Amino acid sequence: MTINFFEKVRKEGPLVHSITNYVTANDCANIILAAGARPIMADAPEEVYEITSLSQGLFLNLGTPSRRSLEAMMVSGKRANDLGLPILFDPVGVTSSSFRRDIGRDLLSQVKFSVIRGNPTEIKGLSGLKTKGSGVDVEGIDMISKANLGDRVKFTRDFSKKTGAIIVVTGREDLVSGPEKTALVKNGHPLMAKVTGTGCMLSALISTLISSDKDDIFQASLAGVLAMGLAGERAFERMDDLSGSGTYRSYIIDAIFKMTDQDLLEGGRYEII
Amino acid sequence: MTINFFEKVRKEGPLVHSITNYVTANDCANIILAAGARPIMADAPEEVYEITSLSQGLFLNLGTPSRRSLEAMMVSGKRANDLGLPILFDPVGVTSSSFRRDIGRDLLSQVKFSVIRGNPTEIKGLSGLKTKGSGVDVEGIDMISKANLGDRVKFTRDFSKKTGAIIVVTGREDLVSGPEKTALVKNGHPLMAKVTGTGCMLSALISTLISSDKDDIFQASLAGVLAMGLAGERAFERMDDLSGSGTYRSYIIDAIFKMTDQDLLEGGRYEII
Amino acid sequence: MTINFFEKVRKEGPLVHSITNYVTANDCANIILAAGARPIMADAPEEVYEITSLSQGLFLNLGTPSRRSLEAMMVSGKRANDLGLPILFDPVGVTSSSFRRDIGRDLLSQVKFSVIRGNPTEIKGLSGLKTKGSGVDVEGIDMISKANLGDRVKFTRDFSKKTGAIIVVTGREDLVSGPEKTALVKNGHPLMAKVTGTGCMLSALISTLISSDKDDIFQASLAGVLAMGLAGERAFERMDDLSGSGTYRSYIIDAIFKMTDQDLLEGGRYEII
Repeated sequence: MTINFFEKVRKEGPLVHSITNYVTANDCANIILAAGARPIMADAPEEVYEITSLSQGLFLNLGTPSRRSLEAMMVSGKRANDLGLPILFDPVGVTSSSFRRDIGRDLLSQVKFSVIRGNPTEIKGLSGLKTKGSGVDVEGIDMISKANLGDRVKFTRDFSKKTGAIIVVTGREDLVSGPEKTALVKNGHPLMAKVTGTGCMLSALISTLISSDKDDIFQASLAGVLAMGLAGERAFERMDDLSGSGTYRSYIIDAIFKMTDQDLLEGGRYEII
Repeated sequence: MTINFFEKVRKEGPLVHSITNYVTANDCANIILAAGARPIMADAPEEVYEITSLSQGLFLNLGTPSRRSLEAMMVSGKRANDLGLPILFDPVGVTSSSFRRDIGRDLLSQVKFSVIRGNPTEIKGLSGLKTKGSGVDVEGIDMISKANLGDRVKFTRDFSKKTGAIIVVTGREDLVSGPEKTALVKNGHPLMAKVTGTGCMLSALISTLISSDKDDIFQASLAGVLAMGLAGERAFERMDDLSGSGTYRSYIIDAIFKMTDQDLLEGGRYEII
Repeated sequence: MTINFFEKVRKEGPLVHSITNYVTANDCANIILAAGARPIMADAPEEVYEITSLSQGLFLNLGTPSRRSLEAMMVSGKRANDLGLPILFDPVGVTSSSFRRDIGRDLLSQVKFSVIRGNPTEIKGLSGLKTKGSGVDVEGIDMISKANLGDRVKFTRDFSKKTGAIIVVTGREDLVSGPEKTALVKNGHPLMAKVTGTGCMLSALISTLISSDKDDIFQASLAGVLAMGLAGERAFERMDDLSGSGTYRSYIIDAIFKMTDQDLLEGGRYEII
């Protein structure tokens, strides 16, 4: 098997337009650069139509939302759809407020996404909005287990069918799901949850890979999940007794900077279900 | 003596709602995670009522203020008061503009804080707003010395009585003051002043500790001050000849990640006055 | 030859008012601190007049612009001009949208800058706005070569004459140009392009140096360019096999923290044309 996701993105250096939160914007920009692409962060409604038009991909992230960023996401999302650009949507904290639920619902109904990535609560919450059109109840969203794997796979495939997007659900184990095919990924390290924005960074990374490889969004998304998980593992291996989450954050970015397609083939641990 | 601040926060993982500036938001989120809690950054007036309602504590920070963030702080502050949630207020640069003075005055008059933390200029400035209701003059606010310690202690206790908050004044040495009890803390390192946001990070850390331990705000605040000071010392010890403020920043977060209650007992240098 | 740019800034600790983007604001603040000055980030139109009035220099950066930040830049720019404070303008992505072009044009026509720093596309784009008053075409803006050096030097000198600003164009090699004198700088490392905000950091650094040394803006700008280039080289030398762009970012800040005037004399590689 040969893959060339990182090789391609480093050769082409696509421009990835990001409308994201101010907490992790720097990390997202650095991940996009580390993967080999070029980030452009812009969220002014006055300019995002033009910025998206210059870009090869779009990354929308619901953290620290505002009326202004919502308006920008809508404009950019529609423009990206018109241009056929790949779009990743990360519904950060979508279940936390009616404001975010409304934004999530509006975006889902008016923009077609290539990939939707979130944790189990976010993905479950977002899917509930789509079907119920009202508040969302999320109960007992826990980790993937043998007992619930079948239900999870069915759920993500159904959501993929409804939205036309590849669904990426991350946690202790990750699912990457199309309408009929699902990958269960086992890479990663628990310490990643102790660094803010590792989820956002994964979303930025997948956005980057699909920006230069939009013909197989499933494979590119899977490559992103494998790469981020491997980066978490390798970053952890470098740590010494005094290292903590601060050093770990830099090491994760380092590991993406060093990541190759060959690394994914050798270190990726997943099964296609 | 036994304390269990870090143990408790790591066990309970409280959600800490932060309305803070975009310069140090990432560091604050990482400190909250390193201490064992979960940050949620949200400053849209449309959603903060709900976000605060989900949370166990509230952190308000006056850096890079806007009308929008002021409105959010007011909504969240009142909601947190209604719910009995601990609130820390960090009046960043409150003496720098009438806009910040107005925000500070409005917040002080309408929200009851559990802790107020700032440098001497900020705390002096904020206290002046409260009593004078107009512009503030800050002259010769310098470090704590033997000569002025008595005045400082009295000042912080008076401000604590007026506001009902624990007052934390940080500098070369730090004061943690209730209405009748004051701790003088001697931990820390001068290099901390060369990293942006170490004050914000301390505020985020205290916000975290009081979110899971609101019964003794004084002790939890003191624990936060000791922990941050110790982190500054330990981070400095790890540095080599080529290290500077960039590396130091990551090491401070590492040190909070590694911090235990036992460390505070062994390394904390303070006296109760 | 003796220079004392870093010595002076560390002695005086000027306050540098920054109106900048949320992606790299933290790095800019840390660079200003590492160089020995004090950053204050504030972009609320309600307060920037006062904040600028307290400051010794002003740094304006066009990344992640908004109506609000534009208004703030205009107010602060005019106030700084009235006070005779040095101002650096970094026209980030000015060619990417009509919104940024309009801001760039408005600022250029109403504020007198001490330094303008950007990459070749940005500087070319900004200069086109000035003369044409409409959309900008940028074609074939590539690196400095023997073949095009003469044209580049003439172009930057002409732009310097029109604006009264020192023009700093950075890329593989950098130009620092007054109306009649130009320095070609050869320090730096290609990896700097893989860290977000190294351009912003350089702008923040020059802003810092001119804030305490406004009598020779050309020399202070040159010192900033040499220092940043040297920092990129030294940071690279510290890297090991596993280091990437994450670690590199911290090392760059470390290197500025360690930088001395003597280092510039010994390590600076430039020629005056």
